[in-house]
Amino acid sequence: MKIPKKIKNLDAVFNPSSIAVIGASREPNKIGHVIVKNFIDGGFAGKVYPVNPNAEEILGLRAYRSVLDIKEKVDSAVVAVPAVHVASVLEDCGKKGIKGVVLITGGFSEVGKREEEEKIAAIANRYDIALIGPNCMGVITPATRVDSVFLPIYKLGRPRVGGISFISQSGAVGGCIVDLAARAGIGMSKFVSYGNAAVINECDLLEYLAYDKETEIIVAYLEGVKDGKRFLKVAKKITRKKPIVVIKAGKSQAGAEAAKSHTGSLAGSAEAYSAAFKQASLIEAQTLEQLFDFAKIFDQVLPCGNRVGIITNGGGMGVLATDSLEEEGLQLANLSEETKKSLSAALPPYANIRNPLDIIGDADSHRYEVAINAMMKDENIDIILLIILFQTVGIDSSVVNIAIRASDQRKKPIIAVCTGGEYTEMHKRILESYGVPSYSSPSSAMRAISKFMQYAAHYSKYNQMACPAQLKTKK
Amino acid sequence: MKIPKKIKNLDAVFNPSSIAVIGASREPNKIGHVIVKNFIDGGFAGKVYPVNPNAEEILGLRAYRSVLDIKEKVDSAVVAVPAVHVASVLEDCGKKGIKGVVLITGGFSEVGKREEEEKIAAIANRYDIALIGPNCMGVITPATRVDSVFLPIYKLGRPRVGGISFISQSGAVGGCIVDLAARAGIGMSKFVSYGNAAVINECDLLEYLAYDKETEIIVAYLEGVKDGKRFLKVAKKITRKKPIVVIKAGKSQAGAEAAKSHTGSLAGSAEAYSAAFKQASLIEAQTLEQLFDFAKIFDQVLPCGNRVGIITNGGGMGVLATDSLEEEGLQLANLSEETKKSLSAALPPYANIRNPLDIIGDADSHRYEVAINAMMKDENIDIILLIILFQTVGIDSSVVNIAIRASDQRKKPIIAVCTGGEYTEMHKRILESYGVPSYSSPSSAMRAISKFMQYAAHYSKYNQMACPAQLKTKK
Repeated sequence: MKIPKKIKNLDAVFNPSSIAVIGASREPNKIGHVIVKNFIDGGFAGKVYPVNPNAEEILGLRAYRSVLDIKEKVDSAVVAVPAVHVASVLEDCGKKGIKGVVLITGGFSEVGKREEEEKIAAIANRYDIALIGPNCMGVITPATRVDSVFLPIYKLGRPRVGGISFISQSGAVGGCIVDLAARAGIGMSKFVSYGNAAVINECDLLEYLAYDKETEIIVAYLEGVKDGKRFLKVAKKITRKKPIVVIKAGKSQAGAEAAKSHTGSLAGSAEAYSAAFKQASLIEAQTLEQLFDFAKIFDQVLPCGNRVGIITNGGGMGVLATDSLEEEGLQLANLSEETKKSLSAALPPYANIRNPLDIIGDADSHRYEVAINAMMKDENIDIILLIILFQTVGIDSSVVNIAIRASDQRKKPIIAVCTGGEYTEMHKRILESYGVPSYSSPSSAMRAISKFMQYAAHYSKYNQMACPAQLKTKK
Repeated sequence: MKIPKKIKNLDAVFNPSSIAVIGASREPNKIGHVIVKNFIDGGFAGKVYPVNPNAEEILGLRAYRSVLDIKEKVDSAVVAVPAVHVASVLEDCGKKGIKGVVLITGGFSEVGKREEEEKIAAIANRYDIALIGPNCMGVITPATRVDSVFLPIYKLGRPRVGGISFISQSGAVGGCIVDLAARAGIGMSKFVSYGNAAVINECDLLEYLAYDKETEIIVAYLEGVKDGKRFLKVAKKITRKKPIVVIKAGKSQAGAEAAKSHTGSLAGSAEAYSAAFKQASLIEAQTLEQLFDFAKIFDQVLPCGNRVGIITNGGGMGVLATDSLEEEGLQLANLSEETKKSLSAALPPYANIRNPLDIIGDADSHRYEVAINAMMKDENIDIILLIILFQTVGIDSSVVNIAIRASDQRKKPIIAVCTGGEYTEMHKRILESYGVPSYSSPSSAMRAISKFMQYAAHYSKYNQMACPAQLKTKK
């Protein structure tokens, strides 16, 4: 398939060698200042050109009157000038040969000024500029340190490098989810707040991310889609190779009206959307929490079946996990005789050798190691759920190492549940950062496993799936 | 109603003037050491008597061979001696006139030793000792600094003083929930891990908490109930005055088997339990997250109706909140003409005066104040949902003050939603600590509001409910 030039030019947005910040400012509180600062402080490896007709120098960098005054090649631009100047700035970008633009400036179709928006879209299209926005919050590529989000890092944390790319129609929702992900230790490839989508819309972004080697999982927050048919066609094609997790806001009648007032999106009924999503094998999240709960599980190899082995140092958590497992239609694995034998030999006599496997409140990390090793070998088990209560006397940080080493074998998916306060959260974050998806409760983990399973079944239909399957291209 | 002596004696467990730690130890890793240390470090105001036949002094306190050697009156004892010594220790406690005992020691019915458990129960009953346990994790009363939980504070945080009392059949689940609550800033009155419930069971605890002036909301984690009929009778009576939030583990068939193996609880079907809970007007949580999500909302005055006014600085969050509102059967309030007028005058022209009220991404705390004040006055609004995105440029800590001041008026319930990372969590914790229930997402907030509403309707049936009703006795 031939990729349209406009979509291909998104490369300049996410991985530029040089970037102009048009509307750069010397005032610390101005958006155009924060963006230049984020590029410098973030360690962007390429060249940064501040553009401001009234400044000689901004943050130690030479400033230019216009992009046309820059002698060197410029791949991409972030634009944060008043709306009235946007058209002429875009003309300059086109003449300079800039391929990608992130247009932060608002005051277009979201306030009824549709003609003005069409005008700037026409300019971008004339020059094949991949234009994100207007009225957007910017783009983050953790790997290349591209960061045009104008919010300071102490308020909105930046995530580590990872395989999830996230596109959001709402800048605010997008921002708070990125912040949440950063804190939880979840890795991301790209974040795009695409705002009014005057040129590049959700379908263009999906197509780009489908071909993007750094993107393993796509997450989308949508209030509406511009072209439902194309969206479904594109999504259907992508989900054969990469999972897409989506949340659709404005599904209820009252919610649809709120969405219309917010982004002007026209909404269909909740049922219509859900049915369409299902048809395209999208993974639908019902809540913000589920959005990344569902996405992050794909850090693990795809499971070969739905038989779950549960290890816990708290009996009650095992009971709750079993309840959730049954509710989600998953199967409680039967331990093989060999597993039972090896566990009986290694665990204390008061441990009950069954699934869920309660290794008892006095368990240390060695006991976790024994249990994990036995379940790794057991062919009756497809997925291992590791419940770790970090509050107990015997548990310390070494259990985290054991879980990460087991996950690194990439033989079976390993999912963790850690419920608690500061000490627990610290360890949960480490697990997550090293690719072990970690959940706050048995129910949220089981729900994610169930979606994981559904996608694995879909994936195996379209791919030669050696078991367990590796989604990741890079590992 | 006459309260049985055994239940009345629970006072000695929660509010003792003097306490003996039997099995106190000089070894820092021993349970009997950590407990003495927790009482000293926690600032328990009463007397602490370590009991250990082989020590002269423990942590600077004189140690005694037996409680019978202590000259002064002893209200209560924490017992952490090997199982074989428990019977004789309890006899001593009885002779000494000790009224409450927390028996940490395990090795009784949970490992099949039912006779031994019956024997110690008989001793306790002979002396009217309110005995918690055996095989339990202890008791915490934040207000009196009673803390017999043997886990260090860096692993398991201790909650602030508040109105929620939490009883848990599972020590592990109980512990991690307390830890979670401590971190979230949720206040608690009592925490009890009641273990095997040889003497004091869940019904006794409910009866005690029903009369306890410090307890405003009761939360329970149950795997089974010993006497279903009594449980329902007691619960039904209590819920007319105080809300009870309950989670029942072991509801599924596989989960019930796991529960049987864990605490020996026999379980009924999920439907039977849910129907019974409904009949007694218990608030049932389906997940661990919901347990305190539902409980903490009662920090606010009971609402007079289900018309919700939503304020947000992120349009997308307003859309999601509206979706959840409709799903939970709540009503989107219609702003009165007066409210519309006052908002139009005070908010910028690009703000859309409707519900959900989007005060726009550039909102500062003053704009929140204007919006809250208008909704406080509006008689069309029963509940205010405050969505605050702390990531935005205009928001700082002052918005927290405004929300707390509004909540302190106790005219209408004010519920907050704050989604994000470190900066957001810090502010969420402050709001929570000052009695403004704060949620991570619109959906979790709306679900809690819906339970809140249901309980308010039930409460008003049995009480002269001036509107809005005050559950709290102390404020």
